[in-house]
Amino acid sequence: MEKTLEELASLVEGELQGDPQLRIAGVAGLEEARSNEISFAVGPKYLRKVKQSKAGALIVPPKLSDIARPLIVSENPYLAFVKILKLFAPRPRPSLGVSAGAHLGANVKLGDEVAIYPQVYVGDDSVLGDRVILHAGAYVGSGVVIGNDTVIYPNVTVLDHCIIGKGVIIHSGTVVGSDGFGFAQDGNNHVKVPQVGIVQIDDDVEIGANCTIDRATMGKTWIQRGAKIDNLVQVAHNVVVGENSIIIAQVGISGSTKLGKNVILAGQVGIIGHVELGDNVRVGAQSGVGKSIPAGQIVSGSPAIAHRDWLKNCQILSRLPELRKKIMKMEKRLAELEQEKDS
Amino acid sequence: MEKTLEELASLVEGELQGDPQLRIAGVAGLEEARSNEISFAVGPKYLRKVKQSKAGALIVPPKLSDIARPLIVSENPYLAFVKILKLFAPRPRPSLGVSAGAHLGANVKLGDEVAIYPQVYVGDDSVLGDRVILHAGAYVGSGVVIGNDTVIYPNVTVLDHCIIGKGVIIHSGTVVGSDGFGFAQDGNNHVKVPQVGIVQIDDDVEIGANCTIDRATMGKTWIQRGAKIDNLVQVAHNVVVGENSIIIAQVGISGSTKLGKNVILAGQVGIIGHVELGDNVRVGAQSGVGKSIPAGQIVSGSPAIAHRDWLKNCQILSRLPELRKKIMKMEKRLAELEQEKDS
Amino acid sequence: MEKTLEELASLVEGELQGDPQLRIAGVAGLEEARSNEISFAVGPKYLRKVKQSKAGALIVPPKLSDIARPLIVSENPYLAFVKILKLFAPRPRPSLGVSAGAHLGANVKLGDEVAIYPQVYVGDDSVLGDRVILHAGAYVGSGVVIGNDTVIYPNVTVLDHCIIGKGVIIHSGTVVGSDGFGFAQDGNNHVKVPQVGIVQIDDDVEIGANCTIDRATMGKTWIQRGAKIDNLVQVAHNVVVGENSIIIAQVGISGSTKLGKNVILAGQVGIIGHVELGDNVRVGAQSGVGKSIPAGQIVSGSPAIAHRDWLKNCQILSRLPELRKKIMKMEKRLAELEQEKDS
Repeated sequence: MEKTLEELASLVEGELQGDPQLRIAGVAGLEEARSNEISFAVGPKYLRKVKQSKAGALIVPPKLSDIARPLIVSENPYLAFVKILKLFAPRPRPSLGVSAGAHLGANVKLGDEVAIYPQVYVGDDSVLGDRVILHAGAYVGSGVVIGNDTVIYPNVTVLDHCIIGKGVIIHSGTVVGSDGFGFAQDGNNHVKVPQVGIVQIDDDVEIGANCTIDRATMGKTWIQRGAKIDNLVQVAHNVVVGENSIIIAQVGISGSTKLGKNVILAGQVGIIGHVELGDNVRVGAQSGVGKSIPAGQIVSGSPAIAHRDWLKNCQILSRLPELRKKIMKMEKRLAELEQEKDS
Repeated sequence: MEKTLEELASLVEGELQGDPQLRIAGVAGLEEARSNEISFAVGPKYLRKVKQSKAGALIVPPKLSDIARPLIVSENPYLAFVKILKLFAPRPRPSLGVSAGAHLGANVKLGDEVAIYPQVYVGDDSVLGDRVILHAGAYVGSGVVIGNDTVIYPNVTVLDHCIIGKGVIIHSGTVVGSDGFGFAQDGNNHVKVPQVGIVQIDDDVEIGANCTIDRATMGKTWIQRGAKIDNLVQVAHNVVVGENSIIIAQVGISGSTKLGKNVILAGQVGIIGHVELGDNVRVGAQSGVGKSIPAGQIVSGSPAIAHRDWLKNCQILSRLPELRKKIMKMEKRLAELEQEKDS
Repeated sequence: MEKTLEELASLVEGELQGDPQLRIAGVAGLEEARSNEISFAVGPKYLRKVKQSKAGALIVPPKLSDIARPLIVSENPYLAFVKILKLFAPRPRPSLGVSAGAHLGANVKLGDEVAIYPQVYVGDDSVLGDRVILHAGAYVGSGVVIGNDTVIYPNVTVLDHCIIGKGVIIHSGTVVGSDGFGFAQDGNNHVKVPQVGIVQIDDDVEIGANCTIDRATMGKTWIQRGAKIDNLVQVAHNVVVGENSIIIAQVGISGSTKLGKNVILAGQVGIIGHVELGDNVRVGAQSGVGKSIPAGQIVSGSPAIAHRDWLKNCQILSRLPELRKKIMKMEKRLAELEQEKDS
C-alpha cells in the first residue's frame, strides 16, 4: 500500500509542506525509517535524530515547521503518527465464522461476522455481538455477554455471567471473573464466602496480559469506559476502576476500593481495600496507598504521602548517613560546651 | 427457592426474633437487599445503613438484638450470612462425565461423577477422585493425583506427578508444577538444574488465578491443609506454606522458605529464600522479609522490622524534612554559642 | 539405571576416591539420599549433614577431600551434581509427531521429530525447528519462527510473527507478543498505538510461568542469548534484556529500557522506562530503579541507591526513633546553654 503525503496530511488534519504527491509506503521511528517512509518528532530535543533520519517525510509540531523536508505539521504529532500507523498496519480481521474445533454451548447467540477460532469454549446462553473475535484457547463461560467489536486473545478466561462491552480488548492469559478472595472465620477454619457477583467491563476498555479481575462477592466488580490496564494487574472483588483510568503493570487493587475518573496508577502500586481515590489522582510507582486520596492529588511512597514531600524525603534519605554524622558531631560539640560551662 | 426465617435461623444455629414463617428468597448487602431478602450487620457502625435498608430480615450480633425488625441473632453474623449465601447461590455441579472434546491419556483412573469438559487434557497414568471437575482448557499432566471434590478452573496447568488433595480449588490460569528457577554456573553459562521434585497441595487449599507454584528441585513444594492463596502469587521451589496460612495477591516467596501455620502475608510481600516464618507470623503489605521471623511476630517494612517500630518510623519519616530543618537550626545555634565562648 | 562411581567421575571430570565400581542408582540431597545414591556438599558448613547422610557417595570440593567416604572431588560440586542429576532424571522426550487434536494452519513448516500435543494451535506460515515440543494448550500464532529443541509448555501463548531461538524453554501460562501498553492522547481519550513490532527471543533463553513479554511498538522487544527469567515477570515493549541476565520473579521492566549482559534483578524489582542498566549491574529485591545505572554497580532501595549506602540507611532507619530522641534531647540542652548565656 502506498499513500501520498497529501492523503496522509488530510487524514490527520495536518498542514502539508513539500510535494503533495510524494509517495509514502510505511511508518517507522526516526532511526529506522527509510526514504519511502514517514516518521515523527514531538519536539526540538529530537532535532539531531531528525537530521540523521533517512525518513522521506516527517510529522512535526508547529515549532519545528521550518525543517527543510517534506512535512506534515500537526498540533499533536504523536497522535497523527498513530493514525497513520493504524492505516499502514491494520491487524488482520479474519472472516472466520465458527471454527470446527470450537465448542459452543446451548442457546449461544452470535452476532454478524464473528470469528471463533478452534479450541475456543463458549458456555450455554452466552451472547456475542457483531464482529467479536475469540482467539484459539479463549474460554467464555455461561451467560456471558460480549459487545460488538470486542477482541478476546488466546488463552483468556471469562467466567460465567460476566458482562463485557463494545470495542473491548482483553489480552492473552487474563482471567475475568475468578472468585474474589473472601473467607469467614469458623474457629480456626477459613470458610469460603461464595462469590455470587459478576465483573462488568464497559466499552473501549483494554486489559493487558495475565491480569486477574475477580468477580464481586455480591453485585459487580466494574471497569468503566475507556480504562486501560497493563499486564499482570490484580483487581480484587467489588473494585471500581473509573472512566479513562490508566493502570500500569503489576498494580494490585484490594477489595471494594473505588478509583475515580482519569486516575493513573504507576507500576507495582498497591492499594488497600475499601478506600476511594478521587478523579485525576496519580500514584507513583511502587507506592502503597493505605487510605483514601482526594481528587487531583499526586502521591508517592509506601505508605504514600504527597509526591512533593516524598521527593524531599528521598533527598534527605539519600543523605541520612551524613545527617547522622552531623548529629553525632553536634552532640560532641554540645558536650564540650557543657563541660566548659561546668568547669 | 424460598426459605422461612425459622429454617434459616436453624441452619446457622442463631436465635430467631420475629415471624418464624417470614419467607426469604435471597441474600444481599444492606444497600441492595429487597423486602424478600435477608442481609446482615456485624456491628453498631452499620446501624445507619441498617435503618435505611429495605431488607426483610437481618442477621445481627447480640449487641444489636434490640433492632425492631425480623432478626437472626448470631455470635458470628458474617459466618451465618455466608452459610445462607451458600444455600441460596450454589454453583452448578455439572453431571457431565467425560466430554467428547477432552483428551484422556492411557491408564487414567476416574472416580465417580467426574465432570471433564471439552478441551481438557489429562496425561497418562493420572488419577482423578470422585466428583472432580476439570473445566475447559485445564491441563493435567502425567502421573498426577487429584483428590475427591477438587475443582480445576479453565486454563489451569497442573504438570506431571503433582499431588492435589481433596476439596481443593484452583482458579484459572494458575500453574502448578512449573520448573523451579535453579542454575549452576559453568563459567559464564547458567546450566539448568533439573527440577525433579513435585508440588503437593493438601486438602481444602484454595489457590487464586494466575499464580505460579514451582515444583521442587528434589522432594516437594508443599501447600498444607486449608491454606488460602490469592491471585498472582509466586511460590518458588521447595517452599512450604503451613496449614491455614493466608497469602494475599502478588506475594512472592523465594526458594526453600518455610511458613508455619496461620501465617498471614498481606499483598505484594516478598520473602527471601531459605528462611522460616513461625506460626501466626503476620507480615504487612509490600514488606520485604530478609530473615527468619519467630512465631507470633508482626512485621512490616522493607526490610521488615517489628510492626510497632515500623509505624513509629513511618511517622518520623513523614516529618523528616521538619527534623532536618531542626538539625540545621541547632547547628547554627551551636556555632553561635561556640563563637561567643571563643570571643 | 545404574552407573559406576568411575563413570560419574568421568562424566563430571572429577577426581575419584574410593571404589570405582561402586554402583549408583540416583541422586538426592544429603538428608534424603540412600546408600545407593550420590549427594553433594559445596563447603565445610555442610560437614555435620555430611556425617549424618546415608548417601553412598558424595561430590565435594577439594577442601573436603579428606572425608573418609566414596568421593568425587570437583572444583564445582554443584555443577557436577547437576550434570549427574540430568543423567538420572531426564525429562521424557515424546516422539509424537502431530497429534490428531492439534490445529495446524496453512503453510506451517515442521522440522524433524517435532512433538505437537492435542489442543495445540499453530497459525499460518509458522516454522518449527527440529525436535520442537509444543505441549497441550500451547498457542503459536501466524508467521512465528521457533528454533530447534525449543520446548513450549502447556497454555503458553506466542503471538504472531515472534521469533524464538534454539533450545529455548517457555513455561506454562507465559504470553509472548501481547501488545505493548501505548496510547496517544486525543483530548480526554486514550487512542491505542498499534503495536506492530515483534518479540525476539534468542537461543538458550528460559522464561518462567505466567510472564508477559510485550511486542514492540515498532522494531523488537529482545531477550538475548542465555538470559533466564523467573515467573510472573513483566517485560514491556521495546525492552532489551542482555545476554545471560538473570531476572527473578515478579520483576517489572518498563518500556524501551535496556539491560546489559549478566545483569541480575532480584525479586519484585521495578525499572522505569527508557533507561539503561550496564553490564553486570545488580539490583536488590523490591528496589525501584528510576534512572540509568553504569556497568558493574550494585544498587538497592526504592528509589535505588548504591547498595552499600542503602545498607547504612537501613541501619539508621531502624534506629530512627532513637535518633529523633537524641535530637530532642540535644535541643533541650542547647536551649539551657543559651538561657544560661543570656542570664
